[in-house]
Amino acid sequence: MAQQHLDPPTDPTAGPTGDALAGYLRAQATEFLRSLRQHRETGAGGGTPAHARSRVGVEPGVGGNGMDASGDAALALRRSARRISGTLHTFRPLLDADWSEAMRPELAWLSGTLAREHAYAARLERLLLALHRLSGSSVFPAQPGVAAESGTGTRSQPGVPERGNLTVGAAKAGALLERQLTLARTRAHSAALQALGSSRFHAVADSVAVLASEVPLTSAAATADLRPLAAAAEERLCDAVAALPLITAGHPYNAEALIHGLSPDPAPHPQDGPWHQVRLLLRLHRYAREVLYGENAPVDVRLLTAGQALNRHRDASEAAAAAAAAARTPRIAPATAYALGVLHADQRHEVEAARFAFQQSWQKQTVGTP
Amino acid sequence: MAQQHLDPPTDPTAGPTGDALAGYLRAQATEFLRSLRQHRETGAGGGTPAHARSRVGVEPGVGGNGMDASGDAALALRRSARRISGTLHTFRPLLDADWSEAMRPELAWLSGTLAREHAYAARLERLLLALHRLSGSSVFPAQPGVAAESGTGTRSQPGVPERGNLTVGAAKAGALLERQLTLARTRAHSAALQALGSSRFHAVADSVAVLASEVPLTSAAATADLRPLAAAAEERLCDAVAALPLITAGHPYNAEALIHGLSPDPAPHPQDGPWHQVRLLLRLHRYAREVLYGENAPVDVRLLTAGQALNRHRDASEAAAAAAAAARTPRIAPATAYALGVLHADQRHEVEAARFAFQQSWQKQTVGTP
Repeated sequence: MAQQHLDPPTDPTAGPTGDALAGYLRAQATEFLRSLRQHRETGAGGGTPAHARSRVGVEPGVGGNGMDASGDAALALRRSARRISGTLHTFRPLLDADWSEAMRPELAWLSGTLAREHAYAARLERLLLALHRLSGSSVFPAQPGVAAESGTGTRSQPGVPERGNLTVGAAKAGALLERQLTLARTRAHSAALQALGSSRFHAVADSVAVLASEVPLTSAAATADLRPLAAAAEERLCDAVAALPLITAGHPYNAEALIHGLSPDPAPHPQDGPWHQVRLLLRLHRYAREVLYGENAPVDVRLLTAGQALNRHRDASEAAAAAAAAARTPRIAPATAYALGVLHADQRHEVEAARFAFQQSWQKQTVGTP
Repeated sequence: MAQQHLDPPTDPTAGPTGDALAGYLRAQATEFLRSLRQHRETGAGGGTPAHARSRVGVEPGVGGNGMDASGDAALALRRSARRISGTLHTFRPLLDADWSEAMRPELAWLSGTLAREHAYAARLERLLLALHRLSGSSVFPAQPGVAAESGTGTRSQPGVPERGNLTVGAAKAGALLERQLTLARTRAHSAALQALGSSRFHAVADSVAVLASEVPLTSAAATADLRPLAAAAEERLCDAVAALPLITAGHPYNAEALIHGLSPDPAPHPQDGPWHQVRLLLRLHRYAREVLYGENAPVDVRLLTAGQALNRHRDASEAAAAAAAAARTPRIAPATAYALGVLHADQRHEVEAARFAFQQSWQKQTVGTP
């Protein structure tokens, strides 16, 4: 793959240079400012605050597909912030060092803060869907976004959960998770609003505004070939993937993900770390390809499916941790704790399934195994 | 496969006839009586009663490998009882109808009664091993018998559980399961002893003694070709397999086995029934082959592995039900219930893994997929 994309054509000077880098950063900065305006116009945070939305259970919007306008704006804001930050990182040597080193943590802080509300909402939806699936209870027809989240195609149709058809334990577990994750989501919502009003944020917005007009390239950058740095990013990805336990992951039902499933630590399992790391490196590689090939970059299905598998891995890992944490709530009924235990194990198996899916998609084009 | 084994050779009369059937039944009956003698000599039930054994947790013997002498005898007794009963069923038309119809339920009662104690012991061991695996706690080196039970090769080394390294919840869950399954096992132990002393059992033993000397064949049986009846048994197996959801089962992480994982019914899931049925039909087919080809029958690895997968399916299904039932114990701590929930889900995924293993082994020789 690396070869396929990165072998220099007969004329080496034909490769994209710093100009392409500047163009990409300007475009992302412009997109950032556009989303910011839109976000302010739509009233920063949307009409309905999170806690009110939660009243009606999980609203269709929150799955990641078709969020309300301000949600879309926040998503777009994060999208460009991530791309700017990642590009500053991958092409560091071609940019004013002090400036980009100062900017990256600020962009990370921003996209992290903006991501949290949506993450809690998606986690709650994932867990409620799982509770209904585990109860064999009927749910509304699947939505694209949700279906994408729900893993293997043969699962029972997921969709927006409805109350009913749940055992007492499952219902209580669902209510408990909804209380806890909705509270966390509400807090994240206010935190995001605060952040967007903070002077820290305005400083970020100002530097992005600068970026939109002039990109602080080094003198050498304008004519420098971008491909070596992009290749280095891909190499970091491949090295990290090579370090993953892919042989085990490719062996279905290896039962690795649930080891320590009963360990006292509610935090995501340490074994998940390397996979989360690969997820980030995959993203950096994707952004580097965008810089090189622009919007009309050849879509790499393998990167797409691998990335989806790693997102699913991350979501399931965090959902499993949330179920385990909820089970530590004092004075819950045994039936509730039992349901949370089943739910935790189910999500850990989702983690395992996601690793299998990643292994399959990754091996597909590298060694050609089915 | 049917063809391969059952096509009549050029000379059709060369196929095994009722004489082979009579020989097989006589041999099994003799084996039955031999094991019965051995069982009585070893003091019907072994020196250590089940409840005393349970004191030291799960003893190495109870995994199904290397049981004490009386355990071995009981195993051998069941083994021949199952074979006699199965053979009477498959070759019914060649045997005195009233006699064999009267005998089969008695043999079923006997092997069922004798099987229970061992089943509870094995279930407890399986669940304790799982609890330790889920706690990531170190266990003694694996034993052959246990390793065979523990599914995919990449699991963390299973073995005889030792106390320690368990969370409070896991430890309490283990103690609860040990209490409940040891009680059930002790009851099964006394029930087996009672059965072996009952007049009902002596009647069975007498009929088996008759069988050992003269097999009540029909007049036509002596020269009848056994292959059509054996083929019919194989056909019943193949039809039942064809009715299984093998396409889903062949799709790893299909999450089917845990559907209704939170249903209020503690009994094994109805979806398991067809698989249990195939397990029995596979056994009948194996016995029919023994009748046709005798002790030196060609070992069919496919039948072997398929049978092991279905045993694992049965064991995991019942272990999952036991965990769910234990979680219904009144006044247990939430941490205990949580651990039992994780354990239940883990065993249901073992069920799913066993279905996948069966699908793989079955497809291997029929359609030649890897």
